[in-house]
Amino acid sequence: MRLDTLNQGELREAVARLEAEYAEHQAAGLALDLTRGKPSVPQLELAARLDGILDGNYAASDGTDTRGYGGLDGLPEAKRLGAELLGVAPESVIVGGNSSLTLMYLYLMHAVHHGPGAGGGPWREVSGGVRFLCPVPGYDRHFAACGDFGIEMIPVPLTGKGPDMDRVEALIAEDRGVRGIWCVPKYSNPTGETYSDETVRRIAALGQSAPAGFQVMWDNAYAVHELGTPEPLLDIMPLARELGTADSVVLFGSTSKITFAGAGLAFVAGAEATLESLRARLALVTIGPDKVNQLRHARLLRDREGIREHMAKHRNLLAPKFACVQHRLAERLTDLEETRWTEPRGGYFVNFDAAPGLAREVVRLAGEAGVKLTPAGAAFPYGRDPEDRNIRLAPSYPGLEDVDRAMQVFVTCVLLASARRKLAG
Amino acid sequence: MRLDTLNQGELREAVARLEAEYAEHQAAGLALDLTRGKPSVPQLELAARLDGILDGNYAASDGTDTRGYGGLDGLPEAKRLGAELLGVAPESVIVGGNSSLTLMYLYLMHAVHHGPGAGGGPWREVSGGVRFLCPVPGYDRHFAACGDFGIEMIPVPLTGKGPDMDRVEALIAEDRGVRGIWCVPKYSNPTGETYSDETVRRIAALGQSAPAGFQVMWDNAYAVHELGTPEPLLDIMPLARELGTADSVVLFGSTSKITFAGAGLAFVAGAEATLESLRARLALVTIGPDKVNQLRHARLLRDREGIREHMAKHRNLLAPKFACVQHRLAERLTDLEETRWTEPRGGYFVNFDAAPGLAREVVRLAGEAGVKLTPAGAAFPYGRDPEDRNIRLAPSYPGLEDVDRAMQVFVTCVLLASARRKLAG
Repeated sequence: MRLDTLNQGELREAVARLEAEYAEHQAAGLALDLTRGKPSVPQLELAARLDGILDGNYAASDGTDTRGYGGLDGLPEAKRLGAELLGVAPESVIVGGNSSLTLMYLYLMHAVHHGPGAGGGPWREVSGGVRFLCPVPGYDRHFAACGDFGIEMIPVPLTGKGPDMDRVEALIAEDRGVRGIWCVPKYSNPTGETYSDETVRRIAALGQSAPAGFQVMWDNAYAVHELGTPEPLLDIMPLARELGTADSVVLFGSTSKITFAGAGLAFVAGAEATLESLRARLALVTIGPDKVNQLRHARLLRDREGIREHMAKHRNLLAPKFACVQHRLAERLTDLEETRWTEPRGGYFVNFDAAPGLAREVVRLAGEAGVKLTPAGAAFPYGRDPEDRNIRLAPSYPGLEDVDRAMQVFVTCVLLASARRKLAG
Repeated sequence: MRLDTLNQGELREAVARLEAEYAEHQAAGLALDLTRGKPSVPQLELAARLDGILDGNYAASDGTDTRGYGGLDGLPEAKRLGAELLGVAPESVIVGGNSSLTLMYLYLMHAVHHGPGAGGGPWREVSGGVRFLCPVPGYDRHFAACGDFGIEMIPVPLTGKGPDMDRVEALIAEDRGVRGIWCVPKYSNPTGETYSDETVRRIAALGQSAPAGFQVMWDNAYAVHELGTPEPLLDIMPLARELGTADSVVLFGSTSKITFAGAGLAFVAGAEATLESLRARLALVTIGPDKVNQLRHARLLRDREGIREHMAKHRNLLAPKFACVQHRLAERLTDLEETRWTEPRGGYFVNFDAAPGLAREVVRLAGEAGVKLTPAGAAFPYGRDPEDRNIRLAPSYPGLEDVDRAMQVFVTCVLLASARRKLAG
């Protein structure tokens, strides 16, 4: 639909039609939720045999009784799972509890108070404060963790192939307080883009020129979460080792969107210096992770092939929902001025850009018609989308019919907000 | 055995006899470990049906699908378990992951950087720094966490009925930098003592005169861990509420020594202001705890009666080991000058005091005869036992025969070190 070809009278008619359509949606008393990237109940069912899978055998491959204390690094078989997901050697992995966010938060705390293994000292002692580069739109919880430690955030635009690397390199060259960059390198949250080989190479090289202790926070949350033809991502760690920058890369991952969202495994990986320094902190924080759950996961997922088979079942459940989103968006919003969206080949989100200045209004309209969306601006540091146009759509949790219904409401809201603006402007 | 009645010649003979005995122990090539309070394999077996107990039913009592994200507070039924252990209302409990140490560490971090819910601001802004009162001997991991945040530790002697409260009150009155006290109120690690009613009352009242933000870190790790006739502990929270000091008490507990040491549940409890303030931090650290494991625990332990029944089985396994320790100590060390030990009615430790200046030597001798003990001094802040006499014995993990063997070696080491000192002195 195009609005720029309509005259004032036609626009007025369009607004009236859309208002009637919107009122109909409102009258339906919907309660739908597209706010967060949550696996649906049928997806959770795919791992339902996790509980009981041990069949009374709590012994790990190395003979460890998983019920006891200790084992800070995690079980060998759980380290191998993490290594598969993150493209590193098993000895480069530490397996945590159920939340990679916890590992990221602890890692930041560790760097702020004690300094990362890469050197350069505690970040809290950096005069003038520490800054992080934040590719946008990005993951709100990354930004919230930075905010909690008083780390200033500098947005950097994403390009469809990863962050604008000219900008990243320039910022690091001109600002010696920069100590890190957040990256979701595959099927990025929310843009769905996968970093190109060139982007990965340039990120791996950042440690050569960045200040000591600079850390690439490589959150590979969607490493195996395909929706169609897989988009390959270059493994960053081997590159970094070649370039002598292995200390600058810390990788995170989890099985939250593979097995149980709230009861999976989390992984952190890095160079030896990174792990050694982190272990010293972890030893104070815990006597060890839940190794019983690690063993369950190793029994369920087994190896690369086991993960691949399991993820194919997720794809079967998720792909129709993403296809539905594309269908409803394309059906009426193709050619709508200044409006665009992504067609991700993996991950959990569709990134939608309305015309500038409309995002908050669209989210408000949708909310009042019973369709909850992620708050506008949430994907930006400090919750501030400078153009007020970005909206994250997360269609994984509701059933297919609900996704379809929610998307029809969403499209109405976008059209209504756009037409009203046009008429007013 | 007494040494003070022996003349030089008799002493020389005694040393020679003990050295022969010690050499025999050494020749046996033992490898025994009394270092840490770990449940034994038969104890872990008591909860073996945890894995599989859900039988495919992952729904909590309130309908929550435990496999999904969220639920920062924990499941209602898991909160009730924590409430039983800590003597508080279920709504005063937050259920964490597998480690109460993690909750304590995060709580300290929260207080240092943001300030506790009780007010008084972030501890890092207290001019002159923050200090903690540390009843000694105590738990080394409490002290390590304090050390990590630069909190200065002031030892306070334990009396057999809890900390020396005159000293505690005097220190708080004279030093306005004191912001907390560590307490293991029941079957304290390592002394095994339970705080008397008067001690609990005086601790609950500390918040009335202490600086704003003062926190009693009430680590009730052995709340239901009886070895004989239970020693009742007064519930501190109702007292604190009466006194208007509820904000000053934070309680911790876990099922680590009830179900699986490494795969249990941890709990933190406190007043509303405490929980509200902590939740704000937890929301940044995690999307939620492992609720599946919470549900497993609720199904296994059920309620107060379920916990009681389960703990009786632990007692059956543990009590003979503690009896053996008492037997071997009493057999040869009764009347040995300046030597004493505890007879705990619960918990995981026997606290042994050799004559001053002998602890490190005894631990060294035992180690060289294949019996590993907790390092001397470990139960004191900064690892410094000013009298070098305290040794923590942890007989829970080895089998009964190994405990018996280890204790015979230990007794020989104590006698040998004592006799040699006497002869030299």
